[in-house]
Amino acid sequence: MSLQVVIIGAVALGPKAGCRIKRLDPSVNVTMLDRDSLISYGGCGIPYFVSGDVADLKGLLSTSFHMERNAGFFKGAKGIEVLTRTEAVAIDRKTKQVRIANLDHGGEKSIPYDRLIIATGSSPVVPPVPGMDLEGVMPINDLHAAQRVQEMVSQGRVESAVVIGAGATGLEMAEALADLWGVETHVVEAADRILPAFMDREMASMMTSHLEAQDEVNIHLNCPVSRILDDGQGKVRGVVAGGEEIACDLVLVATGVRPNSELAREAGLELDDRGAIVVDEYLRTSDPDIFAGGDCVSQMHLISGQRIYMPSGSVANRMGRVIGGNVLGGQNRFPGVVGTFCIKLFGLSLAHIGLNEDQARAAGFDPAAPLVVQADRAHFHPDQAMMYMKMVADRSSRRVLGLTALGENGDAVVARVNALAASIGGGVSLDEISNLEMAYSPPLGAALDILNAAANTVENLIEGRLNSMHMDEFTRRLEQGEGADTVFMDMRTAENAKPFLERYAPAWTHLPQETLAQHLNEVPRDKDVVLVCNSGARSYEAQCTLNAAGFSNTYNLGGGVAAVRKSGYPILGNGDKSGK
Amino acid sequence: MSLQVVIIGAVALGPKAGCRIKRLDPSVNVTMLDRDSLISYGGCGIPYFVSGDVADLKGLLSTSFHMERNAGFFKGAKGIEVLTRTEAVAIDRKTKQVRIANLDHGGEKSIPYDRLIIATGSSPVVPPVPGMDLEGVMPINDLHAAQRVQEMVSQGRVESAVVIGAGATGLEMAEALADLWGVETHVVEAADRILPAFMDREMASMMTSHLEAQDEVNIHLNCPVSRILDDGQGKVRGVVAGGEEIACDLVLVATGVRPNSELAREAGLELDDRGAIVVDEYLRTSDPDIFAGGDCVSQMHLISGQRIYMPSGSVANRMGRVIGGNVLGGQNRFPGVVGTFCIKLFGLSLAHIGLNEDQARAAGFDPAAPLVVQADRAHFHPDQAMMYMKMVADRSSRRVLGLTALGENGDAVVARVNALAASIGGGVSLDEISNLEMAYSPPLGAALDILNAAANTVENLIEGRLNSMHMDEFTRRLEQGEGADTVFMDMRTAENAKPFLERYAPAWTHLPQETLAQHLNEVPRDKDVVLVCNSGARSYEAQCTLNAAGFSNTYNLGGGVAAVRKSGYPILGNGDKSGK
Repeated sequence: MSLQVVIIGAVALGPKAGCRIKRLDPSVNVTMLDRDSLISYGGCGIPYFVSGDVADLKGLLSTSFHMERNAGFFKGAKGIEVLTRTEAVAIDRKTKQVRIANLDHGGEKSIPYDRLIIATGSSPVVPPVPGMDLEGVMPINDLHAAQRVQEMVSQGRVESAVVIGAGATGLEMAEALADLWGVETHVVEAADRILPAFMDREMASMMTSHLEAQDEVNIHLNCPVSRILDDGQGKVRGVVAGGEEIACDLVLVATGVRPNSELAREAGLELDDRGAIVVDEYLRTSDPDIFAGGDCVSQMHLISGQRIYMPSGSVANRMGRVIGGNVLGGQNRFPGVVGTFCIKLFGLSLAHIGLNEDQARAAGFDPAAPLVVQADRAHFHPDQAMMYMKMVADRSSRRVLGLTALGENGDAVVARVNALAASIGGGVSLDEISNLEMAYSPPLGAALDILNAAANTVENLIEGRLNSMHMDEFTRRLEQGEGADTVFMDMRTAENAKPFLERYAPAWTHLPQETLAQHLNEVPRDKDVVLVCNSGARSYEAQCTLNAAGFSNTYNLGGGVAAVRKSGYPILGNGDKSGK
Repeated sequence: MSLQVVIIGAVALGPKAGCRIKRLDPSVNVTMLDRDSLISYGGCGIPYFVSGDVADLKGLLSTSFHMERNAGFFKGAKGIEVLTRTEAVAIDRKTKQVRIANLDHGGEKSIPYDRLIIATGSSPVVPPVPGMDLEGVMPINDLHAAQRVQEMVSQGRVESAVVIGAGATGLEMAEALADLWGVETHVVEAADRILPAFMDREMASMMTSHLEAQDEVNIHLNCPVSRILDDGQGKVRGVVAGGEEIACDLVLVATGVRPNSELAREAGLELDDRGAIVVDEYLRTSDPDIFAGGDCVSQMHLISGQRIYMPSGSVANRMGRVIGGNVLGGQNRFPGVVGTFCIKLFGLSLAHIGLNEDQARAAGFDPAAPLVVQADRAHFHPDQAMMYMKMVADRSSRRVLGLTALGENGDAVVARVNALAASIGGGVSLDEISNLEMAYSPPLGAALDILNAAANTVENLIEGRLNSMHMDEFTRRLEQGEGADTVFMDMRTAENAKPFLERYAPAWTHLPQETLAQHLNEVPRDKDVVLVCNSGARSYEAQCTLNAAGFSNTYNLGGGVAAVRKSGYPILGNGDKSGK
């Protein structure tokens, strides 16, 4: 008799595993079930459906050749039996059967399996505050919710909205509401930064500044929600967050997800502390005939060496293929993840891989993480745009631990992060990235790529030639003004320095880098000297000169004035929009 | 006394090494000399200056903060002594002196060195045919030549031009002449494809087709130049190539470069067969006090294991930093190159890394290299564009050997190639790339990236599930028509198949993939069956079904109809422009 494979869950991982099994061995019987009527959709596309970028919900449900991925499609094109509106209520591991219930008609029955795949995904975490059950308050967890929101905004029924949570989904939904529909949108976040799962404060601040510059977008940080307000008729009228009341007629809850693992727990499979199913590197659960993957499992982080929970549609797809092979006896490995992430918001893109500086420290490393600013291709090419980048490396081992990049050419930003994907898990060194052979042609890259430059800069920091100062510390000292024991030394042209001298002299001084060697006596030795240029490159050059002349009181403003401006700090007053 | 470092050559590697030395130890005396009056320019930017993308020659000579990199700049900002219009005429290794000559005044003298860096670059190879000395015939090897061409075209003195050589420089110059200036441009190439140093025929044909679709561009392949024609007054009037005469008033010679190594040869340093200076992985020549890098040296190819000559401004820059450190006693390694390359022409970009299928075979591997076509981001996102990709892997070791990608979003194309840069030299496996964690968000990537898909496709080929047919073979059989023992089976919708049935029936048949399992008896067993869809994905699905049903006579058209059209083949007649 044919092998019987049952798959619980028909989005991302489930279909991928099922199709792979049928391609490897069409004689296998594959049955896939799902609670929902809509299956195999691109959930990550929901914000783009709400915004109108994807005109029709079918876009998220269709193959690249425009066939809708419904039960009929899986039957005809893939040879997979699909049962929609069907819930798995219990797994009997002894008899190897799954008890299933039809959610429309109520009938229950058991179906046998030789191999079982748990692809139950995740559910939204809802903050435990009063009012979450009001009309107009909803998580964005499936296409039905997406449709409801899209209907409300497209019919003009939403004037203002509060998005709870500044993670990827929350920010993408905020863009969708504000950009196309002109909804006044407030994003409230309990943490001190947006995207707290991935970003350090400096890099987060650049995107926050960009978001705040958009019409209709308001970001509220350090702002936990304490209650949702009732209009007296069971409908939302506002949100209380961080002690303030924000009026709104729609609340989207985007405070993360948790693994759907009740079924696995009841079947006695091993779960981790946060309730995610534990799988080995072959994606087997603690029962060798049961595989699991996607949003219901935790993964090994290949850099920190810790198990983490990183739900991702992309990881789920790749895991699906691995499981498909292993169900049939293959030995395909999925050793873990390296935490890649990207997001595009109002034309600005941000991407990340590995650990940020805070995470690296928490994982026991001694991180060096200077900020680097450079053009994303030949600086003389008209298509160039500035990119802002932080590479994190361990000081003692020189191992690269993470990378964050931000800029306007989204593909170019993501490219730098992806360039580390194949090697960062294996412990790539700074020296290898310093020499990394990035393709070069002036319209497409730089002779010395920003990724090479970032590795070089980390090395300079580790070896003590570069002594970098964070933006936060720079602005704190700048605001102290002349009373403090800090001198800011502008290494640029007189024209560049002029407005800064007008605003900050005498604390701000001017000494062009190319004249420094002849004017060493003008550099104070009794104060901290913060060296400043546009990007941090000329000021580093100056720091080398001063190091050699015996100065040990200099700091380089990492990323220069460009980075300070990008973070939204009004260094030349509120009228200074040059960073925008 | 301070260490004396002399650098011969002041473009790319020379300045990079010199500046690094001065940053590491400002007490070192660095003297850099160059035959030219213009130094430290971005030579790769020449086509963009000729086209007008870079408005002023100063753009190629300036830092990102708009300071011109002349002798004064290097003196003031970097502490480097620069002698322009100065030629090194001999190296005396015994006394450690370089004999230099002033090209303007004729004086000669010797300068001592403790460490010498040879950064003499390369010179154009000029084909040995009559007429190369005529007025209007020139290689594009420096800024002076660039200026002359730019003056000629901007003053309207060029109506038609012949570019000899379809390498990167030749094609970029052709774009510059034709696109902005409307010059009728002919590119003549002796090989059977453009970019013969990097491309296989299939991938090259897609870019060739794109070039030929542009106004004023004509590509002549298999077309060696035999002579340049004189107008009787010492000026060019045309070119004879491949037996044909092409009239023109400008000839640009872009048939590659050779290393400038005469000085090294005369000093008794080791050269390789093609005359490039041999260096070790620390970039030391056979004399431990003399370093060399950039266009005058050969490199180890980390995949083929052979020494190659790959001149590149980008490699030169990275080598410069390594030499800078090693001159001061560092042990920085430059183990070799992996052959990355990219080019953007009329909005279409092409990138490559490692070995192509032909090169892999020549290097002793047994390559599998199927063509894959997929969107470069979520297929439902409006910014998506199709990408065309070939990954090359060794059948027995499953080692990835190379990658070529082509598409309209240039940064996205280059990104896939760069994603292999850190791992391909170390022998990354197909399985690792299959699971490569590319960042995903619908505007910036796909849940299963084309790079993952390409690795999966190579694996399917190696494991015998996929039996792929090259485009060349497909079109050859298609032209044979019904007389041949080949059936083309269109697995798409009736609407897609209709025009193909009209043109090619009875050799062309139609059987939608989703109905195949019920119609196996309609598939002939006595002929070769070529399975066709738009991209090769549905036809692969069909092939799996047919394999399991015992058919061993099926071929999958790799890349599908999309790839055939992209290569410019008029599959539905000359009116078929749908691939453009």
